[in-house]
Amino acid sequence: MDLKDEIGEKATVINEELKKSLAFKGLKIYDAMRHLILGGGKRLRPVIAMLSCEAVGGKNNDSIPFAVAVELVHNFTLLHDDIMDKDELRRGMKTTHVVFGEPRTIIAGDALFALAYEEILKLKIKPEKLKILLKDFSVMVREIAEGQDMDIDFEKRKDVSEKEYLEMVGRKTARIIKTAAMGGAMIGNGTAKQIEKLAEYGRLVGVGFQIWDDVLGLVGDPKRTGKPVGNDIRRGKKTLIVVHGLSHANEEDRKTLLNIIGKKGISDEEVKNAVEILRKTNSVDYAKNMALNLVEKAKENLNVLPDSDSKQVLSMVAEYCVGRDK
Amino acid sequence: MDLKDEIGEKATVINEELKKSLAFKGLKIYDAMRHLILGGGKRLRPVIAMLSCEAVGGKNNDSIPFAVAVELVHNFTLLHDDIMDKDELRRGMKTTHVVFGEPRTIIAGDALFALAYEEILKLKIKPEKLKILLKDFSVMVREIAEGQDMDIDFEKRKDVSEKEYLEMVGRKTARIIKTAAMGGAMIGNGTAKQIEKLAEYGRLVGVGFQIWDDVLGLVGDPKRTGKPVGNDIRRGKKTLIVVHGLSHANEEDRKTLLNIIGKKGISDEEVKNAVEILRKTNSVDYAKNMALNLVEKAKENLNVLPDSDSKQVLSMVAEYCVGRDK
Repeated sequence: MDLKDEIGEKATVINEELKKSLAFKGLKIYDAMRHLILGGGKRLRPVIAMLSCEAVGGKNNDSIPFAVAVELVHNFTLLHDDIMDKDELRRGMKTTHVVFGEPRTIIAGDALFALAYEEILKLKIKPEKLKILLKDFSVMVREIAEGQDMDIDFEKRKDVSEKEYLEMVGRKTARIIKTAAMGGAMIGNGTAKQIEKLAEYGRLVGVGFQIWDDVLGLVGDPKRTGKPVGNDIRRGKKTLIVVHGLSHANEEDRKTLLNIIGKKGISDEEVKNAVEILRKTNSVDYAKNMALNLVEKAKENLNVLPDSDSKQVLSMVAEYCVGRDK
Repeated sequence: MDLKDEIGEKATVINEELKKSLAFKGLKIYDAMRHLILGGGKRLRPVIAMLSCEAVGGKNNDSIPFAVAVELVHNFTLLHDDIMDKDELRRGMKTTHVVFGEPRTIIAGDALFALAYEEILKLKIKPEKLKILLKDFSVMVREIAEGQDMDIDFEKRKDVSEKEYLEMVGRKTARIIKTAAMGGAMIGNGTAKQIEKLAEYGRLVGVGFQIWDDVLGLVGDPKRTGKPVGNDIRRGKKTLIVVHGLSHANEEDRKTLLNIIGKKGISDEEVKNAVEILRKTNSVDYAKNMALNLVEKAKENLNVLPDSDSKQVLSMVAEYCVGRDK
């Protein structure tokens, strides 16, 4: 079974649906809405939603509007996130605000968010279930914002603990993957136990995914990641690697690291120094191991599912999240 | 019947509900979410929602979660709008991004939007009705963004027509008042005819409201409006007054006006000049008259309602929208 093929088929369906959903004409905002989302992306979140629906015995296509909604929200948060972080590259492309300006990008994000609800309302499921799904979806978006807020806050702090980091990531990154898996299972009429376990699978995969992102942000190949080298260091992000490094480096290294992280306009040399210190404290390996462990735990939650191709692919997707190079 | 008393009672209920809805603790984003919305505001939109519910015979409190949701969305769009326009004052207070920074204000807006759905989902109405309401609400937010997009676009154009202006305002300002009135009527179990007429009432009041805002933005007292003199001229906004002035001024005045509007850092003298030209073309009176006519038409739609205090107050609210000095 080839993961790329398995995901590719579903990603194609999502891409087609996204194109249809975004086929507006006549205003500039529509181009801003389409720029990032139709410019590429792995579609991991909607694929996880569709797989979770199937894995509990749901029909192949029942979850599509929900899967599309999840991808719309993911991209809306990226549009706003890139403005906040002043990022100029994403998926190897110019970010939306670089092309369309910040004002138009802010409202393009808002419109993508609104459109997500228009999609969810197309679901053909029981009203009580739709209400639960919509409630979870709304709380999710609020919690993503809360996670982004913690992320901003941590940039200015020297003393972020691993616990705090994990709480931030739980909201900023993992919450939407949890919702994708859980919502898919609900739409597919999974049992309460299956829904609960798939939610936990999604949450754990999500945390692992972000930690792996932290690793790529530090030691990834810019040609593959589409982001500049040492991006997170330059932005002063308190990644798990930095959090671990700061609490395990000797006094001198800790001072050097704190000096580099969060300083404006740091040199390539300084980025290199920071990476060197983080290697000395084994912080990159520490993060990699934690990500791998999280995904192992995530996969255990799949035991509640009957054997199926979808179940197997969910397992492969989890592994991919902590093995990818982009 | 005193409008202030009639509105005041409902506004107090809304204020209490907003406080409860926003009683989050522990993160800085929550303060950014509360800053503008708990800092004041006339609560016109939620009051219109509540009045519309009552006017069709609905129970007093049934519409509250919906009314709160409308006010949350209104404030979320203001947060983003003020960033886009670089406005530093609103309701006489520092805008949210001036106090909390742009990144935090962007996500505070997103979280207010998400919270609006959490509120709507508290409504105790039939599932089919909830779905219609949620669909309309989502389309509304997308259309507000589209209206804001047109507004940005018009700043750079010299040839905005009155028709285009009205279309922009229909989305940016009137859409949410239309939804407030229509949603209230739906929740109150109004007839199809009543719902339709109240929607039209809301739309017309909304357009009138914006045109009156254009008037205040040009010739209003800054001490009352809480906004700087000639704010719209400085921002290069194509208000109805400017649109009318540009198509009715003589060639020389037209050139002068175009030169002033949209120029960066214009002087108080230039603002005065612009106002002078717009008075010569009678554009301020033209706008005032149009606003008054719209509200007269809006009120005709109330004829579909049985006589009641709520009906009377809806009529007074419409008049207030085009008579207020702030």
